[in-house]
Amino acid sequence: MSREIPYKIYLEENEMPKQWYNVRADMKNKPAPLLNPDTNQPMTLPELEQVFCTELAKQELDDTTPFFDIPEEILGFYKMYRPSPLVRAYCLEKKLDTPAKIYYKFEGNNTSGSHKLNSAIAQAYYAKKQGLKGVTTETGAGQWGTALSMACSYFDLDCKVYMVKCSYEQKPFRREVMRTYGASVTPSPSMDTQVGRQILEKHPGTSGSLGCAISEAVEVATHSEGYRYVLGSVLSQVLLHQTVIGLETKTALDKYDITPDIIIGCAGGGSNLGGLVSPFIGDMLRGEKQYQVIAVEPASCPSLTRGKYAYDFCDTGMVCPLAKMYTLGSGFIPSANHAGGLRYHGMSSVLSQLYADGYMEARSVEQTAVFTAAEQFARVEGILPAPESSHAIKVAIDEALKCKETGEEKTIVFGLTGTGYFDMYAYESFHDGTMQDYIPTDEDLEPGFASLPKVK
Amino acid sequence: MSREIPYKIYLEENEMPKQWYNVRADMKNKPAPLLNPDTNQPMTLPELEQVFCTELAKQELDDTTPFFDIPEEILGFYKMYRPSPLVRAYCLEKKLDTPAKIYYKFEGNNTSGSHKLNSAIAQAYYAKKQGLKGVTTETGAGQWGTALSMACSYFDLDCKVYMVKCSYEQKPFRREVMRTYGASVTPSPSMDTQVGRQILEKHPGTSGSLGCAISEAVEVATHSEGYRYVLGSVLSQVLLHQTVIGLETKTALDKYDITPDIIIGCAGGGSNLGGLVSPFIGDMLRGEKQYQVIAVEPASCPSLTRGKYAYDFCDTGMVCPLAKMYTLGSGFIPSANHAGGLRYHGMSSVLSQLYADGYMEARSVEQTAVFTAAEQFARVEGILPAPESSHAIKVAIDEALKCKETGEEKTIVFGLTGTGYFDMYAYESFHDGTMQDYIPTDEDLEPGFASLPKVK
Repeated sequence: MSREIPYKIYLEENEMPKQWYNVRADMKNKPAPLLNPDTNQPMTLPELEQVFCTELAKQELDDTTPFFDIPEEILGFYKMYRPSPLVRAYCLEKKLDTPAKIYYKFEGNNTSGSHKLNSAIAQAYYAKKQGLKGVTTETGAGQWGTALSMACSYFDLDCKVYMVKCSYEQKPFRREVMRTYGASVTPSPSMDTQVGRQILEKHPGTSGSLGCAISEAVEVATHSEGYRYVLGSVLSQVLLHQTVIGLETKTALDKYDITPDIIIGCAGGGSNLGGLVSPFIGDMLRGEKQYQVIAVEPASCPSLTRGKYAYDFCDTGMVCPLAKMYTLGSGFIPSANHAGGLRYHGMSSVLSQLYADGYMEARSVEQTAVFTAAEQFARVEGILPAPESSHAIKVAIDEALKCKETGEEKTIVFGLTGTGYFDMYAYESFHDGTMQDYIPTDEDLEPGFASLPKVK
Repeated sequence: MSREIPYKIYLEENEMPKQWYNVRADMKNKPAPLLNPDTNQPMTLPELEQVFCTELAKQELDDTTPFFDIPEEILGFYKMYRPSPLVRAYCLEKKLDTPAKIYYKFEGNNTSGSHKLNSAIAQAYYAKKQGLKGVTTETGAGQWGTALSMACSYFDLDCKVYMVKCSYEQKPFRREVMRTYGASVTPSPSMDTQVGRQILEKHPGTSGSLGCAISEAVEVATHSEGYRYVLGSVLSQVLLHQTVIGLETKTALDKYDITPDIIIGCAGGGSNLGGLVSPFIGDMLRGEKQYQVIAVEPASCPSLTRGKYAYDFCDTGMVCPLAKMYTLGSGFIPSANHAGGLRYHGMSSVLSQLYADGYMEARSVEQTAVFTAAEQFARVEGILPAPESSHAIKVAIDEALKCKETGEEKTIVFGLTGTGYFDMYAYESFHDGTMQDYIPTDEDLEPGFASLPKVK
């Protein structure tokens, strides 16, 4: 007989993962390597470590080591805000009147408000260990920048954040959180960099873009003594660090002899999704178990469901290496959507390969439906979810309602990546009925596909 | 030998309190009764239940029953966001280089962002059980209104919030959180009520006040079939519900054989402070143990440190019963301070009596010093604290630094009531150096004292 399941399953400190899991080691079809955009040849360690910290560049290139020890200093930081709870959504189940059992792994109980901190602290640690002075990065809405500023503050590392100018001006709250942690936050484009000055000269009134902010952050990192550039998603190193989510989830489920049928995560660049599902897909790759894994993306930015599997630039500024991924093209400009963290044209190479190999399915959902699910969830489960996370909620509810029809008692696990406290303008537009859904037409996708680089 | 203390002590679900503790039962000198302002006679149950739910009115009047069972439905809701962690502040200790051991009870891991939810859910439950249609309340910055809207949504109860107009306009985020939970939020003064219409006629451009919002909420409650008024602090019933904080803290400490030397809480109307310290003061009242209990209040609103112990109105609108408390007078207008939750002219009757009897000491602190402590805390402990909570942090740090001087290994426990995610304007003014400290002169306090009612 199984034990009674509490509302929240917390691991003990000594049950927390001591290693990250590298799913690439178990993949028969390895993800395609990053390419140097100038030569179309695989990026080497010496090339990568000009931009990234050396240890992180090594992790990026390693597709054979199955486990990486989590350094003690990072474990110490994890203990401040982890383990995160695996919550049994009893109240949501009751509200839906479903025989399904719903669990969510909640990553929002830290000041950055999301899972981003799991990788930020790792990247800051390796930068510090390398004796660097600091790191640079870009941020849009500010979730990643916040996480990185917290991590850098902990290791007493300088943190330069280039924040898309319109967000800097319209979303002052996250900017202030970053400043609280001692980060310098510069609206992008800025006069600090050559690329910034060029853009400002051409378009004096521009409100900036993520692509431009990346280009500025990379320029500052590569032109400043003792600095490197760090990134919060897409990269394989980021997925590696984020597996702490999935590993904790698995341990918590195992404690209560629970085997999930369906695992659901929202999909932007892949950091949360990859972190949650990698350990489960590992079981599948090794032929031990079978799960239904669902990636959920916004209908306005449908890289998995409507993208091409091809080499592309990771950034719209086209300064980073080429990655093979499901992509809408770095020239694709997603329409306005309140889930800023999912407005990315491509998808992690690891997840793209797993999707191509059939280990994962994908669904796209529209934002008013997402906010309807978010509000329904908030009212019964208490937590006000981030728009990104709410994509997973939407599909979890859909699946639970299917169980209601069929009478199946499926176990559904989804990732609740964060809270929506800094997204209240989005909720406001939902309440006011001014929120709109955008689905790109095939014609809308053409310019993006036309921007794909030619790689043999 | 004691067990190693983890970063976060979480109770198991079955270790959570099943009863609230009524400290009044152990007090030899009972708090003075509420008085009817028209007759100066103690309020009776029939009088109180015209405004409050009957069961809550009974709790308000009961100063002899030591424990109240927590109803199952409330325990179920508590399990969604409780137990809250008791955190060992290892990183802060290290940063301060102190031999003191510092713990904080963190109440911010829920969407209301504070401890207010502990009483909101209780009050909503009793309203539902009584068959009411809904409840009314006022809110300033919105913390209490948010908590109440979450609680009402859970029990499917109508929730009418009167929000001070300037907050309604300047702080749209908490308003949207309340709307997410289905509450109706009305800027006060409004045309809904007689008192609102009168004030608008006299002062057409007014931005409202808490006193006016209370008056509107009470008027709507008493003039609408099936409605009652609810309040988030000051009242003895609220302190009762909030003892879940102190009881959990005590159980967690007991699990690891820890006896605190100093217990610190921020003090506004007393809801958090009373909830945290009541179980410990109970030990003192029964002669079992001795602790140093410290209430921390803003220097700009020093009710305990500079107020008078006298009967006064609980609200600036003078519609509520009279309570005997340390007060600056309901006519005292606190200067601008970013800790909106501590801008209250009086203090719970229970805590006032305990303070008068020497079970507690009080300190007042200035807000720039509070934000300096808040930022220091955030940078090492991760959590970005609410301005209110940071008052307790400030004094905890002061005490830890004293231990550094003396070499004493004192154990310090403080209440971290909530997060500051909706207070970033305050942090911004701190970062920009525009934050000011205000300490009222003795002359500034005179109009407040002159407003005290004459009660023999």
